[in-house]
Amino acid sequence: MEQARKGITPLIRAVAEKENVDPEFVRRGVAAGRIVIPCNPAHDPEPAGIGEGMSVKVNVNLGTSRDMPDMEPELEKLRVALRYGADAVMDLSTGGDIDAIRARILKACPVITGSVPIYQIGLTAARKNAVVEMTEDEIFNGIERHMRDGMDFVTVHCGITKETVANLKDSGRVMDVVSRGGSFLTAWILHNGEENPLYANFDYLLDLARKYEVTLSLGDGFRPGAIDDASDAAQISELVTLGRLVKRCREAGVQAMVEGPGHVPAEQVSANMIMQKSLCDNAPFYVLGPLVTDIAPGYDHIVGAIGGAMAAMAGADFLCYLTPAEHLSLPDAEDVREGLIASKIAAHVGDMSRGKGHARDTAMSKARKALDWDSMFDLCLDREKAEAYRSRGCTKKEDGCSMCGDVCAVKIVSNYLRKD
Amino acid sequence: MEQARKGITPLIRAVAEKENVDPEFVRRGVAAGRIVIPCNPAHDPEPAGIGEGMSVKVNVNLGTSRDMPDMEPELEKLRVALRYGADAVMDLSTGGDIDAIRARILKACPVITGSVPIYQIGLTAARKNAVVEMTEDEIFNGIERHMRDGMDFVTVHCGITKETVANLKDSGRVMDVVSRGGSFLTAWILHNGEENPLYANFDYLLDLARKYEVTLSLGDGFRPGAIDDASDAAQISELVTLGRLVKRCREAGVQAMVEGPGHVPAEQVSANMIMQKSLCDNAPFYVLGPLVTDIAPGYDHIVGAIGGAMAAMAGADFLCYLTPAEHLSLPDAEDVREGLIASKIAAHVGDMSRGKGHARDTAMSKARKALDWDSMFDLCLDREKAEAYRSRGCTKKEDGCSMCGDVCAVKIVSNYLRKD
Repeated sequence: MEQARKGITPLIRAVAEKENVDPEFVRRGVAAGRIVIPCNPAHDPEPAGIGEGMSVKVNVNLGTSRDMPDMEPELEKLRVALRYGADAVMDLSTGGDIDAIRARILKACPVITGSVPIYQIGLTAARKNAVVEMTEDEIFNGIERHMRDGMDFVTVHCGITKETVANLKDSGRVMDVVSRGGSFLTAWILHNGEENPLYANFDYLLDLARKYEVTLSLGDGFRPGAIDDASDAAQISELVTLGRLVKRCREAGVQAMVEGPGHVPAEQVSANMIMQKSLCDNAPFYVLGPLVTDIAPGYDHIVGAIGGAMAAMAGADFLCYLTPAEHLSLPDAEDVREGLIASKIAAHVGDMSRGKGHARDTAMSKARKALDWDSMFDLCLDREKAEAYRSRGCTKKEDGCSMCGDVCAVKIVSNYLRKD
Repeated sequence: MEQARKGITPLIRAVAEKENVDPEFVRRGVAAGRIVIPCNPAHDPEPAGIGEGMSVKVNVNLGTSRDMPDMEPELEKLRVALRYGADAVMDLSTGGDIDAIRARILKACPVITGSVPIYQIGLTAARKNAVVEMTEDEIFNGIERHMRDGMDFVTVHCGITKETVANLKDSGRVMDVVSRGGSFLTAWILHNGEENPLYANFDYLLDLARKYEVTLSLGDGFRPGAIDDASDAAQISELVTLGRLVKRCREAGVQAMVEGPGHVPAEQVSANMIMQKSLCDNAPFYVLGPLVTDIAPGYDHIVGAIGGAMAAMAGADFLCYLTPAEHLSLPDAEDVREGLIASKIAAHVGDMSRGKGHARDTAMSKARKALDWDSMFDLCLDREKAEAYRSRGCTKKEDGCSMCGDVCAVKIVSNYLRKD
């Protein structure tokens, strides 16, 4: 961010080229904080911009857990994520040798990579004694370790404060807190009666972020976890707090994005995007979902794609994927694929509504018209799946597909329309 | 419709009860044509209302084809459709003994059932010689047979006329016509140089519909088949024509709904719904998708759910499902399930945005908060899938789920928030 204020850097130029926009546009966006380019020199990922005028990006979460501590399945998920075009990956490991896993994932992941250090910090405390026993030193040392190891961005729940916790208590929420990091810090504040160290010592956090050149992702610890809880005082007062912190990030020359909901009814999605852009002075918005209904466990990647498309159309810049396993269990590699493609569809819908990415749709339609299946497969978000479906249905070699069989609409009209 | 103009019928009362609205509201809606209750006495399905103030309904297409002429797989799809809550089923069979299959499906299907008679009519002509050789008598006799057999609604492509075909020719479309029925009639008009019999003799069609008490679903033969073709003159001039025909249906006391797009970019979905409601004087709107991008074959149920949710929020009353097999092959029973649930999510999102159906989300969130898995499963759109995911992840009997494992946000915050 500091470099961007001086002039166009190679990183900015690379992002501008990828996005097909003017480098000066990117420079101004980064300098003002409306665009972030997460890039820790210790990791040095492929350049990617998130925010104003950039294509909408998609993040894939993966990581071990207590019950599934093995590294290999997570590396397989990473391969799937990269193969199907994830723009970013977050390592949320909480099981096994967390440090070693983080190192392996950072090494294997060429795209921007993030983490939520408080998971490891809280867990270490919990397994020793209790989450609420985390010390301030443990919190900051844990965050610094993730930064030093090369994370391009880290989620930090700085908006959970004594004041916003008071709003939470008053809120009468159905689901209280569903953010794991948020729950750690809420519990910590309630137990210790002290201010959230990440808020109280935000300047120290900024020092660390500047030192390691890490983008802060300001976490939404009070994101609604139920349709009923959406857009309430707890959520919005945290967002107001995050807006103030965005300003302090910019003053300190630290790149920041803001995380957002969560479970939100469809008719409130756009208002949430507008509020964030307004309260956080157009900082890039990173949303989880939003999930527009609670009643479809097993299909939350679809629920999230609906909300994500609406969000991206209304200003969200970065979508965190959801898998069919959400709310039920940890995803496997196949779930990662399903969730990622669903999210990429949503991002693409957002892009198109902003005048980007439409050429691929045109090319697909032209290939369809020509019944040119090779080109169609080339243009698919998931070529393998499309091929599998087509091969299943077609026993005979033919132009059309088995949907219409011998009464292909495309063929019939072509014959007569082009005759005269 | 004629009965509704005289007073509240038992059918109207049943629909009002199901929808939890005033019977007089339903009666007025049906009398004015803003609500339809498709119900052929020869079939006598469970009462269901489509249109103003009614919950958004979902249709499942199934049927045999030349390559897959067996009846049993289609009956299995029907069972899946009913099991997962389809509100309507359309039999689009084009292979095997079509008449026998239609009879079997009508017998086995307790929900409203529809068909597209022109498929069978066109195919019979095509297999004899050519689609364009269909005679007027064959067309009307074919439609009458479907009506007599018990179809509650039939799709009829009456908006394809010499005039709208001229608009199509001028349109410079990428995909021309993708509606199969539409392609038959377009080809017929181009080849014979005559007016579409369904348009030219619309009064006779009305006579048949009145005689058999069948709801007409005015087909959108020129629905866009590519994002690039959306909202063009061919599509909208057909819609203008359909609006005129809606008026004639109402004058004749025949229930009518209007079919809609199709492939539509997300930012045009709402405009399409508003135009239909305006041009067709608030006739119930039955949409296929809409599909908001072309680049995701294998995932078109998700693309359709995004467009369907947006459409339902903006006024669509009836969603035709799409399966992952769309554009590639015929769906199997598993695809039917996936597609139906995706569409039901979209319909539910639409309902919620109109103030309906929200109680189920609240109940789910409360069950989640209580970590009451039995109640959660009861509230899921697809219980089996949710159970499968949960059982996969949880080897140990415990309250939380394997996503958070020993650091369940819900449990942590409950402990501390309720302490004081």
